[in-house]
Amino acid sequence: MAGNTFGKVFTLTTFGESHGEAIGGIIDGCPSGLDLDIEEIQNQLDRRKPGQSKITTQRKESDEVKLLSGIFEGKTTGAPIGFTIPNSNAKSKDYDHIKDVFRPSHADYTYQQKYGLRDYRGGGRSSARETASRVVGGAIARQLLKGVTIQAYVCAVGEISIEDDYSKLNLSETDSNIVRCPHSAKAAEMIELIDKTRKEGDTIGGVVSCVIKGVPVGWGEPVFDRLHADLGKAMLSINAVKGFEYGSGFAGSRMKGSEHNDNFEAEGGTASNFSGGIQGGISNGEDIYFKVAFKPVATIMRDQQSVNEKGEEVIVKGKGRHDPCVVPRAVPIVEAMAALVLADHYLLAKLNK
Amino acid sequence: MAGNTFGKVFTLTTFGESHGEAIGGIIDGCPSGLDLDIEEIQNQLDRRKPGQSKITTQRKESDEVKLLSGIFEGKTTGAPIGFTIPNSNAKSKDYDHIKDVFRPSHADYTYQQKYGLRDYRGGGRSSARETASRVVGGAIARQLLKGVTIQAYVCAVGEISIEDDYSKLNLSETDSNIVRCPHSAKAAEMIELIDKTRKEGDTIGGVVSCVIKGVPVGWGEPVFDRLHADLGKAMLSINAVKGFEYGSGFAGSRMKGSEHNDNFEAEGGTASNFSGGIQGGISNGEDIYFKVAFKPVATIMRDQQSVNEKGEEVIVKGKGRHDPCVVPRAVPIVEAMAALVLADHYLLAKLNK
Amino acid sequence: MAGNTFGKVFTLTTFGESHGEAIGGIIDGCPSGLDLDIEEIQNQLDRRKPGQSKITTQRKESDEVKLLSGIFEGKTTGAPIGFTIPNSNAKSKDYDHIKDVFRPSHADYTYQQKYGLRDYRGGGRSSARETASRVVGGAIARQLLKGVTIQAYVCAVGEISIEDDYSKLNLSETDSNIVRCPHSAKAAEMIELIDKTRKEGDTIGGVVSCVIKGVPVGWGEPVFDRLHADLGKAMLSINAVKGFEYGSGFAGSRMKGSEHNDNFEAEGGTASNFSGGIQGGISNGEDIYFKVAFKPVATIMRDQQSVNEKGEEVIVKGKGRHDPCVVPRAVPIVEAMAALVLADHYLLAKLNK
Amino acid sequence: MAGNTFGKVFTLTTFGESHGEAIGGIIDGCPSGLDLDIEEIQNQLDRRKPGQSKITTQRKESDEVKLLSGIFEGKTTGAPIGFTIPNSNAKSKDYDHIKDVFRPSHADYTYQQKYGLRDYRGGGRSSARETASRVVGGAIARQLLKGVTIQAYVCAVGEISIEDDYSKLNLSETDSNIVRCPHSAKAAEMIELIDKTRKEGDTIGGVVSCVIKGVPVGWGEPVFDRLHADLGKAMLSINAVKGFEYGSGFAGSRMKGSEHNDNFEAEGGTASNFSGGIQGGISNGEDIYFKVAFKPVATIMRDQQSVNEKGEEVIVKGKGRHDPCVVPRAVPIVEAMAALVLADHYLLAKLNK
Repeated sequence: MAGNTFGKVFTLTTFGESHGEAIGGIIDGCPSGLDLDIEEIQNQLDRRKPGQSKITTQRKESDEVKLLSGIFEGKTTGAPIGFTIPNSNAKSKDYDHIKDVFRPSHADYTYQQKYGLRDYRGGGRSSARETASRVVGGAIARQLLKGVTIQAYVCAVGEISIEDDYSKLNLSETDSNIVRCPHSAKAAEMIELIDKTRKEGDTIGGVVSCVIKGVPVGWGEPVFDRLHADLGKAMLSINAVKGFEYGSGFAGSRMKGSEHNDNFEAEGGTASNFSGGIQGGISNGEDIYFKVAFKPVATIMRDQQSVNEKGEEVIVKGKGRHDPCVVPRAVPIVEAMAALVLADHYLLAKLNK
Repeated sequence: MAGNTFGKVFTLTTFGESHGEAIGGIIDGCPSGLDLDIEEIQNQLDRRKPGQSKITTQRKESDEVKLLSGIFEGKTTGAPIGFTIPNSNAKSKDYDHIKDVFRPSHADYTYQQKYGLRDYRGGGRSSARETASRVVGGAIARQLLKGVTIQAYVCAVGEISIEDDYSKLNLSETDSNIVRCPHSAKAAEMIELIDKTRKEGDTIGGVVSCVIKGVPVGWGEPVFDRLHADLGKAMLSINAVKGFEYGSGFAGSRMKGSEHNDNFEAEGGTASNFSGGIQGGISNGEDIYFKVAFKPVATIMRDQQSVNEKGEEVIVKGKGRHDPCVVPRAVPIVEAMAALVLADHYLLAKLNK
Repeated sequence: MAGNTFGKVFTLTTFGESHGEAIGGIIDGCPSGLDLDIEEIQNQLDRRKPGQSKITTQRKESDEVKLLSGIFEGKTTGAPIGFTIPNSNAKSKDYDHIKDVFRPSHADYTYQQKYGLRDYRGGGRSSARETASRVVGGAIARQLLKGVTIQAYVCAVGEISIEDDYSKLNLSETDSNIVRCPHSAKAAEMIELIDKTRKEGDTIGGVVSCVIKGVPVGWGEPVFDRLHADLGKAMLSINAVKGFEYGSGFAGSRMKGSEHNDNFEAEGGTASNFSGGIQGGISNGEDIYFKVAFKPVATIMRDQQSVNEKGEEVIVKGKGRHDPCVVPRAVPIVEAMAALVLADHYLLAKLNK
Repeated sequence: MAGNTFGKVFTLTTFGESHGEAIGGIIDGCPSGLDLDIEEIQNQLDRRKPGQSKITTQRKESDEVKLLSGIFEGKTTGAPIGFTIPNSNAKSKDYDHIKDVFRPSHADYTYQQKYGLRDYRGGGRSSARETASRVVGGAIARQLLKGVTIQAYVCAVGEISIEDDYSKLNLSETDSNIVRCPHSAKAAEMIELIDKTRKEGDTIGGVVSCVIKGVPVGWGEPVFDRLHADLGKAMLSINAVKGFEYGSGFAGSRMKGSEHNDNFEAEGGTASNFSGGIQGGISNGEDIYFKVAFKPVATIMRDQQSVNEKGEEVIVKGKGRHDPCVVPRAVPIVEAMAALVLADHYLLAKLNK
């Protein structure tokens, strides 16, 4: 109920603060007999880790996962998989200046009001560091989803965005550049914009697209737990996310039924896919695709007007090591959350078999 | 697990098909001692019911709710509130022609594949008729939320949209016209467009905005059950919804941190509200606002290419009585789902008191 | 969270008070394609209904179930099954005398304190009438459990008890007498004792045994949701239950490991079955058996010392039509709850397939 | 769903196998601002740890808990509390002989059948070692329950049992002897019996009583989540438990209503307490008390007939270091599980405030 568990039957519960001894979690409901590729879990963590390039935070953290249970002789046993990721390189000193100050558009104020106290070091529980545990859960979920591919990529940074539809892109090139955009020309522009913004001590938002192929017909529960509703909640639970749309999305609201309907074809499948691979909340076998909007990172390297716990006006100085733009590192997180949703619905679908 | 229950501690479980004997549900977790205004529940149902105007389906259904339990001498007792809404005026005959045919962009195909059979009459469980039960649940949730006002309105139909921010509109005028748009000039255009589209045997999409005032600081759980993530899932669970954004939304992805940050002010509150009243997943006391995108209704009064259960090509004829545009009737549904989310988080917040 | 839902994936949520318009519930998670024998559901209700014989309450109630959804052309559709059972023959007048009085060993006092008000008519929500909804849920669960037989019977009333082990009894004779005891000689004694007790205006307790055959190996989750722990909770949730034991039960606590261990045999199965068909919380293919202890009904036809809402001493008179002994009518309820637990674990087991 | 989480709003999720790197868990839903006495958590673990005396296993294990999150400057923050307990002194070699053999009355067979593989070392997940994590969760739950005292004690070992009612015992003496029985004469007999049994290479069962004082009126949800039903499930989820009874228990089934009813008294409370402090599933302010039956430990130091994975007859030799009787070490586990149930219902009760 306290919001630290995701999923219904394939569940991830996470714990840990940015500057505590370790973060970690428990993955429960993973079926037995799955050959786990541990290295692949670490690879996904490495895609999310800080200090990867000039356009991410310079904080260096190795993010090494320790799997503590649920695996025997390389296979899952059906028992819960507990894991920890030690917090190294946490510079709590960097945060003394915000001990009793509320940073604009951060969770400092709401946590203080809700809980009456807060671990202010690095944002404590509200830090995006928590998402490392999601990447571990997602990496395991992914290995359960044989035949399903989940590919996210950056489709926009600020005003720079890819106009092409995903089908015209080579998604295998996503990780070929530091901004994780499969369109090399746009990628160059994005990198330049982020770098420029960083030098100005500012930050900028962006959009991540995600495409899922290979999901069979029948995943998703109707009514409240529609597959896209769970995907939406998963994405909206990621730090800094402001919006989610799937298939035709907001553009679909400007269309007519005669244009928007996806006619079924005799050879199988549909002529168009404005539905985004989901009809009535259930996967229909077509590609599932959606977009996730991220706001600019709230921590900027400039002085900002704010108040302290006493309600007095104060100036918050930009300190610490932060990302000028969150989307490049958000790509593996979006993929991880999508994998968690799909693993959950893959198992839920078995209940009606 | 089958997706028919919404909420964690204030829950609504619904049942019923479009053409069965009745639909209904159970509201559980409503605290005792609440004076229930039964008439107000019926009022909300009347806002959703079919046959209200020339721009909604002509199907006439009274949608009268019968409350069966959980209320004693006008007050809630803390026991579950069971209710039914009889299905009158269901013309099953209208659906014989789709008995073994899959209507484009409907749930016919996915239900058939997932369940191996389906109640094809009126779309059965996938019919938007199910949302009447949500309106009952939402109307009760709303009465629990003293001091909170939830106002949804139509902000776009097709290409016609209100540019003004909600603060410049008089939301009390929303129900003064049949399209439920508080901007009378735009409302007239929208009505004309919907009527024109209906005459062409076509349908059109639209966008509903929702503004919530009076939510105190501290509602919402961090990490996975963020207030906006639960609002997003609630909205995405409504039939025909393709997208959700809150606060700055997708536009926020094009902004810089220096523009987007909401500075705290000494007199309380924030100078701007791009956060949309939620920071770190928890309400901060400012207005909560979001937008919901609806696709055009899939049932059009035209012949469409499709296939039947044998995979043979067939022509689906547009029959039955349907809405040319879903947004006018979606307004009370959006409000109901928002009320369910807020009632749930109002109670969840007590767990940390 | 309010305790009106049972089960994890095959769930029953009930609503309704003893003297409201109707009681009922929703069964969710029942797989599609199940041929439902509606008559059999009513048969189970008839086994529980009041007024069956001279040793049960004389209140006459037909208890007719109305299934409202989730069934199409005789088969389950995978959608929730909503149902109601109208309350006929409710004599609320019988309860005016306890409007503000707390009956000894009833829920009057605790409900009043917890909720601040209560529907005192017939005990409202705390009435055993609620168990009729469980019988409906159990009857459907049972039809899902092909090859599994669940047989409960009365093994003790007061001091009269069957010493024989279930294997020496012909359980098909359980319903051949009004006390539902398969041992005819003991049955006669029990009936006489109950009748004598009734004439004295008193009530008496008893014990129900239950035997489950045909459960395959592998149902039950280890650690917290052990099959026997869920059975125990299910039984303890029935009105008037004070104890639960399975397999060797309390007697097992007096045994030595060398006597108690169930050795595995080459031909399969175990030599003895002190484990009661469950090892490590998981079914092992042997018979599952357990006992449930019921206290004497709290409503006696005698004057009793008590207090009213003002805390003043009062005399409570025994009024209304009540059972002198609950166990004969408890037999179908015990079976229903066992069926609900097993259906839940039958489905849960699929999650590791 | 996989049964590794206990509780609804105050939850404990555990992970870990007997011979893995560590066991541990996550406590979620603990309100913020609680001053945690870390030492007291370790004290409770020490009461459960092996190697305490001549009548427990000689395996020496320090069981030191490491709290990783959710605590800041000595107070809970409202964030999940993650913890680990390293597995030291695990002698996996001791288990090579059961690699492919099913020990009688252990979970070897059912785990193998359910999961298709198993971590056989020390019983893996089915080992009672998992209960150490419950003791950590319970110790924290206990600190949340101000004014509530939970005292368990051994009331029977084999045929030796205390006849006295708990009110006649000085429960503060429970830990004054190694068998944890507050009746010194009986304690001496019990210790002698356990020691004698151990020397015979055998094991013996026993019964633990638990008394809870200070629970206010109103904890517990009616219908399915009755306070005693949740206590029963909690106890039945402990390894080796075969039965649970509360208040009058099985003896109550032999009583008459006129004897069993607890009359309310003008000065408050009830004259007798056969109800065991719970009426209609809700606490009534009187003492809550119950008994838990434990079977004899399945591992005996004797040769036993069994089969291997190929179904061939084999002799299982008793090896390893095991308890001749589980009840002395079960006392803190029973208290921990009771604390978890009470903390959960303490919070649940807030939802109706």
